[in-house]
Amino acid sequence: MRTINVAAAQMGPIQKADSRDEVVARMLALMDEAKRAGADFTIYPELALTTFFPRYCMEDKSESDIWFEKRMPNEATAPLFVRARDYAMAMSFGYAELTPDGHHFNTSIHVDATGKIVGKYRKIHLPGHSEFDPERAFQHLEKRYFEPGNLGFPVYRTMGGLFGMCICNDRRWPETFRVMGLQGAEMITLGYNTPTVNSQKPAEGLEERLFHNRLVVQSGAYQNSAWVIAVAKAGNEDGHPLIAGSLIVDPDGKIVAEATTEEDEIIFHACDLDACTFGKTTIFDFARHRRTEHYGRIVEQTGVIEPPEGSDVSGF
Amino acid sequence: MRTINVAAAQMGPIQKADSRDEVVARMLALMDEAKRAGADFTIYPELALTTFFPRYCMEDKSESDIWFEKRMPNEATAPLFVRARDYAMAMSFGYAELTPDGHHFNTSIHVDATGKIVGKYRKIHLPGHSEFDPERAFQHLEKRYFEPGNLGFPVYRTMGGLFGMCICNDRRWPETFRVMGLQGAEMITLGYNTPTVNSQKPAEGLEERLFHNRLVVQSGAYQNSAWVIAVAKAGNEDGHPLIAGSLIVDPDGKIVAEATTEEDEIIFHACDLDACTFGKTTIFDFARHRRTEHYGRIVEQTGVIEPPEGSDVSGF
Repeated sequence: MRTINVAAAQMGPIQKADSRDEVVARMLALMDEAKRAGADFTIYPELALTTFFPRYCMEDKSESDIWFEKRMPNEATAPLFVRARDYAMAMSFGYAELTPDGHHFNTSIHVDATGKIVGKYRKIHLPGHSEFDPERAFQHLEKRYFEPGNLGFPVYRTMGGLFGMCICNDRRWPETFRVMGLQGAEMITLGYNTPTVNSQKPAEGLEERLFHNRLVVQSGAYQNSAWVIAVAKAGNEDGHPLIAGSLIVDPDGKIVAEATTEEDEIIFHACDLDACTFGKTTIFDFARHRRTEHYGRIVEQTGVIEPPEGSDVSGF
Repeated sequence: MRTINVAAAQMGPIQKADSRDEVVARMLALMDEAKRAGADFTIYPELALTTFFPRYCMEDKSESDIWFEKRMPNEATAPLFVRARDYAMAMSFGYAELTPDGHHFNTSIHVDATGKIVGKYRKIHLPGHSEFDPERAFQHLEKRYFEPGNLGFPVYRTMGGLFGMCICNDRRWPETFRVMGLQGAEMITLGYNTPTVNSQKPAEGLEERLFHNRLVVQSGAYQNSAWVIAVAKAGNEDGHPLIAGSLIVDPDGKIVAEATTEEDEIIFHACDLDACTFGKTTIFDFARHRRTEHYGRIVEQTGVIEPPEGSDVSGF
């Protein structure tokens, strides 16, 4: 048994006017609750420090840069690092990162129980669009505010296991989980901010969005025989609802814990990393079963290439 | 609307002693029922003509070759081709293929409404093992009797749409669906023979096997915005139970029809291929959102490569 006592720290809404200090105070309260329950590892959502600002179209960089962190830790987040170290608690959270050389990323970090940043990930699959879109019910400007991540999907050793991270829309892409599975990932953490309504399809509402969240998280876990911890920022942010439904999923793809509110809420599970071994050595023993000679298109082409018209074959 | 009226023709058990003629008679009865319901396309399972013989360890090639078809159509299957053409019905079924030059494949074909074979697929992800394994509750010798398919995952134009096929264990591998999704597949058909018990993990029984079947079929459909038709051979074959649970899944990943028995049973749905368009042009618009520069491992490595010991990073 290599048990990690996991606390998925779902966060309720963060309003545009809320300060970093107010948000960090909520995160500390969640960490206290996680500690009382015996957690080793607390995971917060994507962009945990701010409202989900890609819904706002800002023309001016200096206006949008207020949502970004220039250093990590910084003055606002230092109390999280201090308390986690005092608790000998690992943690992970997401934030908007502005690098010293002016690059913008949607980033998450994994901090170990001594306060060291041992893992860093920058979101690769940015959803949405880059310019104001009058056709949408609301904006989703991630492609405007962020560059695609440049660190790949790294898997790192910590806490006696192999860990990886992804963020929100990454979870819909099986390539995300597979690239980490190919590095032996045993636990993958991810945060998300997912609008309750599809901005381009009003009929797709809460239940369907929760269904898709479960579907992709569960299949990613099963197909790579890894624990997946999916943590929402949820609830109504200044009139814009986000789904909740934070999940802890085992390496068989089964949900072992699921949030029941749209507020700040901890869900716990004692996750045994050794539970990954059966799947990784039998049905998903990649070395024995994968057939890479037939996977070339996955890397060689980005978009769809349909078979040519008039290529109907016959006479096999 | 480009509607294909689909009949998924689940088959109950085929015993070792059953003749091809007996099996084809059952398939014709299912086709008749499909026709009465207005179907355009009837899909039968993997290895539809025989019992699931990879559970038997045969030392002698001449003994095992009795399960294979040397031509298609042949005398036993000709009545299927004749009746389908009479009905102007497309069909797909799986069989064990022995090529003129002596190669063995687990194959499926797609026959159009004129009786032409317009698609052919040879199973790529062969599960199980190649030598008798005394540790298993029962044998699963697909790697003994078949070579991995050599046709890739072709997508072909027929019936006004883009179709692909895979077989059984292929569905557990997201690469399968993605390679077809990258060719624009709108409907993917697959047959399966899935033992009700995991031969290496007795605790994993019917409910978990059905859950995994749904999970991988639904996620494959959703993540590629394609219809998936999954058709079981089911029930008790000479003391060896197979799961049923045939499914028709829409491009949102939702189950629209599911078998309720473990016998010969038709499930129907009128599948509109245009329902694929929304997903393919928004959230799963591959050209806009995929980031192939980070997917290299999927093709470059077959098995797991863990990060080196002592590679813990810090100080980001």
